[in-house]
Amino acid sequence: MAEPLIFYFDFSSPYGFLAAREIDGLAARHGRAAVWKPMLLGAVFKQNGMQPLLNIPLKGAYAKRDMQRETRRLGVDFRLPDSFPFASISAARAFYWLWERNPNAARRFGRALFEHAFVAGQDISKPEGVLAVAEAEGLERDAVQAAMQDSVIKARLRQEVEGALAAGVCGSPYVLVDGEPFWGYDKFPRIEEWLEKGGW
Amino acid sequence: MAEPLIFYFDFSSPYGFLAAREIDGLAARHGRAAVWKPMLLGAVFKQNGMQPLLNIPLKGAYAKRDMQRETRRLGVDFRLPDSFPFASISAARAFYWLWERNPNAARRFGRALFEHAFVAGQDISKPEGVLAVAEAEGLERDAVQAAMQDSVIKARLRQEVEGALAAGVCGSPYVLVDGEPFWGYDKFPRIEEWLEKGGW
Repeated sequence: MAEPLIFYFDFSSPYGFLAAREIDGLAARHGRAAVWKPMLLGAVFKQNGMQPLLNIPLKGAYAKRDMQRETRRLGVDFRLPDSFPFASISAARAFYWLWERNPNAARRFGRALFEHAFVAGQDISKPEGVLAVAEAEGLERDAVQAAMQDSVIKARLRQEVEGALAAGVCGSPYVLVDGEPFWGYDKFPRIEEWLEKGGW
Repeated sequence: MAEPLIFYFDFSSPYGFLAAREIDGLAARHGRAAVWKPMLLGAVFKQNGMQPLLNIPLKGAYAKRDMQRETRRLGVDFRLPDSFPFASISAARAFYWLWERNPNAARRFGRALFEHAFVAGQDISKPEGVLAVAEAEGLERDAVQAAMQDSVIKARLRQEVEGALAAGVCGSPYVLVDGEPFWGYDKFPRIEEWLEKGGW
């Protein structure tokens, strides 16, 4: 099998949510897998003097409208949680813990976390919210709770955020195809074309 | 004929260049025309505390790579002029002067200005560069030169920049379809879909 796609995203990113619904199917259509790599966009922005999307004048208003339009197109009953943007560090830690054990279960858990936030409009910024999703997915509550406090997992996430910075991640989603970067959900058709043609 | 598409762009925008090659064909396929509205992205950015794309950490490097990839895909022999970003006020003034007289000639002139900058890599930031393109397009040099200094034309451009701000323009290209905004060349397939379906 060819090299996997590297799928960087933030659990607090609505466009990351849309990408997470499609990335595995997109990869599979071209004989690939996708490696999910949640990162913390806040850390990327801070290190680079960038602002959260919805805080940027004009772009923020545009993005809110675009999120509604893109999700309506897909038939997704989208809502922004009351608190947005929100911290995604607990979700990302829990995800990496599960990824090490069972990537497919982690993908399902990842999609469930996104839906809890952006369809149910629930809070996943605190451990309690992450644990609610974990229980609904049949994961062991105590194990997930311990994982979010585990120093090895914490170090893993820090390392992944640094890796994302080194890979040039400037937003969510950000996908590497054999080292070629594609930023944004709007680029998904271009990723498909790139995989079909083997680049250009 | 249905309402025209409103096509906002900056003559210093590489993605505006790509959009300008396609916007009229896109509109025509759906029984529409496109009204071209050059604006000054620098003024929009200044008023909103935004940065030119290539000055933003990570995003700038990504955008440079993406411009090369998007133009290679189209078979466009793209280059960034040595001085970039550059002032597009003279080009925009000359354009509006011609648009009032002959919109189709203005569209050809607009595409020629873009090619001069982003294929030939020439300077269109000063009146001399704009005049070189005007002459090559068979326009009267003296008339174009006078137009770039005309107070009515200057006021028209200021008014168009204010109109762009009021319309929420946050980048180039930015297209309004019956009031629905689409930002970025990456959105062109979505504009096509919106026109085909009559929205969603």
